[in-house]
Amino acid sequence: MTSLQDCLTLDAQDPLRALRDQFTLPEGVIYLDGNSLGASPRAAAARVAEVVQQEWAQGLIRSWNDAGWISLPQRLGDQFAPWLGVGAGELVFTDTASINLYKVLTAAARIAREDAPQRKRLISERSNFPTDLYIAQSVCQEYGLELVLLEPEEIAGALTDEVAICMLTHVNYRTGAMHDMAAVTAAAQGKGILCVWDLCHSAGAVPVDLKGANADFAIGCSYKYLNGGPGAPAFVWAHPRLINRFWQPLSGWFGHAEPFKFVPDYHPAQGIQRYLCGTQPMVSLSVLQCGLDVFTAVEPLGGMDALRNKSLALTDLFIALVEERCQGHGLGLATPREHGRRGSQVCLTREEGLGVDGKDSGAYAIVQALIARGVIGDFRKGDGTGLHKDILRFGFTPLYVGFEDVWHAVEHLRQVLESGEWRKPEFNRVNAVT
Amino acid sequence: MTSLQDCLTLDAQDPLRALRDQFTLPEGVIYLDGNSLGASPRAAAARVAEVVQQEWAQGLIRSWNDAGWISLPQRLGDQFAPWLGVGAGELVFTDTASINLYKVLTAAARIAREDAPQRKRLISERSNFPTDLYIAQSVCQEYGLELVLLEPEEIAGALTDEVAICMLTHVNYRTGAMHDMAAVTAAAQGKGILCVWDLCHSAGAVPVDLKGANADFAIGCSYKYLNGGPGAPAFVWAHPRLINRFWQPLSGWFGHAEPFKFVPDYHPAQGIQRYLCGTQPMVSLSVLQCGLDVFTAVEPLGGMDALRNKSLALTDLFIALVEERCQGHGLGLATPREHGRRGSQVCLTREEGLGVDGKDSGAYAIVQALIARGVIGDFRKGDGTGLHKDILRFGFTPLYVGFEDVWHAVEHLRQVLESGEWRKPEFNRVNAVT
Repeated sequence: MTSLQDCLTLDAQDPLRALRDQFTLPEGVIYLDGNSLGASPRAAAARVAEVVQQEWAQGLIRSWNDAGWISLPQRLGDQFAPWLGVGAGELVFTDTASINLYKVLTAAARIAREDAPQRKRLISERSNFPTDLYIAQSVCQEYGLELVLLEPEEIAGALTDEVAICMLTHVNYRTGAMHDMAAVTAAAQGKGILCVWDLCHSAGAVPVDLKGANADFAIGCSYKYLNGGPGAPAFVWAHPRLINRFWQPLSGWFGHAEPFKFVPDYHPAQGIQRYLCGTQPMVSLSVLQCGLDVFTAVEPLGGMDALRNKSLALTDLFIALVEERCQGHGLGLATPREHGRRGSQVCLTREEGLGVDGKDSGAYAIVQALIARGVIGDFRKGDGTGLHKDILRFGFTPLYVGFEDVWHAVEHLRQVLESGEWRKPEFNRVNAVT
Repeated sequence: MTSLQDCLTLDAQDPLRALRDQFTLPEGVIYLDGNSLGASPRAAAARVAEVVQQEWAQGLIRSWNDAGWISLPQRLGDQFAPWLGVGAGELVFTDTASINLYKVLTAAARIAREDAPQRKRLISERSNFPTDLYIAQSVCQEYGLELVLLEPEEIAGALTDEVAICMLTHVNYRTGAMHDMAAVTAAAQGKGILCVWDLCHSAGAVPVDLKGANADFAIGCSYKYLNGGPGAPAFVWAHPRLINRFWQPLSGWFGHAEPFKFVPDYHPAQGIQRYLCGTQPMVSLSVLQCGLDVFTAVEPLGGMDALRNKSLALTDLFIALVEERCQGHGLGLATPREHGRRGSQVCLTREEGLGVDGKDSGAYAIVQALIARGVIGDFRKGDGTGLHKDILRFGFTPLYVGFEDVWHAVEHLRQVLESGEWRKPEFNRVNAVT
């Protein structure tokens, strides 16, 4: 059995402990929702003041040159590239994950149409994050492809020569289950299928080696584990062997080879710059840089290995404590126990019929009761079929979550369940949007 | 002849004079480039600190509900809608102008394909802002349309039953010439052509009445006359009669009818919400709101009529002073004298061959010499054919530019020309990007 004292000892021995001081977190809150919106880096307040009051207000238009605005999407890409196993000049931060997915899926669809026009399927996971499926629907509609949605265990068998594109999210948002990127990519490419990876729940949270896995395209957001701020610019990567084969469809002037020549014809820049579109957002990119700078500070402390070790220790501890201390309340584990298949979150299920009116699982109300106690996780509703159950979701960002946090979070969960306080009417009114 | 004293009197009588205090502007600068990047509203510093330090850092994920983040794109749209002559619920601020143009051009192409598949042309102006032409090229490529580029005087004659879409920028970025939106729209629609308007250089600067003109679609950026910050989120509008006819292709979860139901199928929201795509950027939208709030402060001072009167007075004065005081240096006027055809900028040409080496116009160097004196305008290169000449471009934002500024700007221009200081080598090295 693990004790509170054990957790305090783990914190004292944690080589990453000091990183927590690089974030502003509210008093009295245990924040286990960094997988939805990451915390605010302390440096962000001063940086955003500088960009608004100096670079914009004083520098005005001159800051596109003088403050280096013009190259910021590329510079941030270069700064973070090593964390995804890609090279300088291959990654940019721009637009949103949904928009970047549209760019790369369209590029992939164009490549497939040229190289293998008889392939008419785009496969993905049924419980992929919905925006990915919505964007895929749009691209399929335009390119005459069929979107085929599968359960994770069906994917290997579905990699056939009828498939053009395999689009997967590396770590599932509902379960925290992680695909073996290298193995899936190799299996898909062995069948001539292009692989597009969504890294929203893995960038900055788990080891990612896009070049090592020989991935084709990748995108991801920066407002979760990268702590870039609400709705911060996302990233996009294409393998150098593919990047210059096609225009991406959002062919705006920032993706032009010579944007300031103002010529009427579009000539895409070589490399990842062609994945930029309109004028880039300097305030939000500057805030995002503060999130990326924290990763630079992680490098001398052990880099991704240190982050991953701590993440697994936090999620192992959470699973162990829930199983030790919260038995008898209908909770189950949706997240894989196997380290190689687990992201940086733990998702619990709860049996249907245990809710206050016997009609639902009560998971929503339990999450609300925890939030009222300052333990912020979130709830993801099941699909009602029993296949995808209601989820209590807890994210463990190793940059700022500690072992003592895990102890207290589980203790609150135990108290919420044992006291029955989650049954209160105020926790059973559905009003949250996220 | 107008004197400095006359200008001081005009400033003293200006009902909008106090609005200048709502902006932070650098000492010693006369800023005539608000048509490229608007100035920083004074309120932006405090607002951005609040959103970063309170809403994000303290509120964390809860701010999507508690701080109203979730509806901010729509609320900003409702706030600014009257300035474009559209209704509440019809406008959103989101993404970039280029991306929004892609959405509406694609929607228009889909409508045209259904209603009039024999129409195969998309017409625009050859000197439209290039990103519009690049996006149009992409859409034309996907929908089998031919992009036909015209001079402004050729447009009326080109409105034939072979044309599906007419895409124009209301105020030309190079010349400041303004189309008669109502007349062009009526002529085009009389031929069964859909009209898409880019308002980048007119929103907040000149009267716009989209519903009155019966326009079909409109987009625009917010970082020029709306003072929303560098790369701030743009806006998009579709006429209610068209909005629900088609998906726009960037069908992300924020455009879903029920984004937080997390269902795998895309069902677009009714109305303009379907033009949202991914997770929306709260820091930059919050900064933008400070720019829009200034317009709310204009309403009791006379609204758009007062802004337009001042804008025309400023540009009239600039033209008159240049013509009085800068004769004999090869300058010409690219901007229409007629008020009904003029935006809020004045563009000067300069004869080719007057540059230091006799090879160019010298316009670039003159602009650089002015910037060195603190008079910030910008340069737009000609196309080398003589049809579109080198341009010295000066924007007059009536919110913060005064009549005395105009006097001193012209006086600096006169001195730069008469002294020949623009011939210095440092002003003749091309290194600016914007």
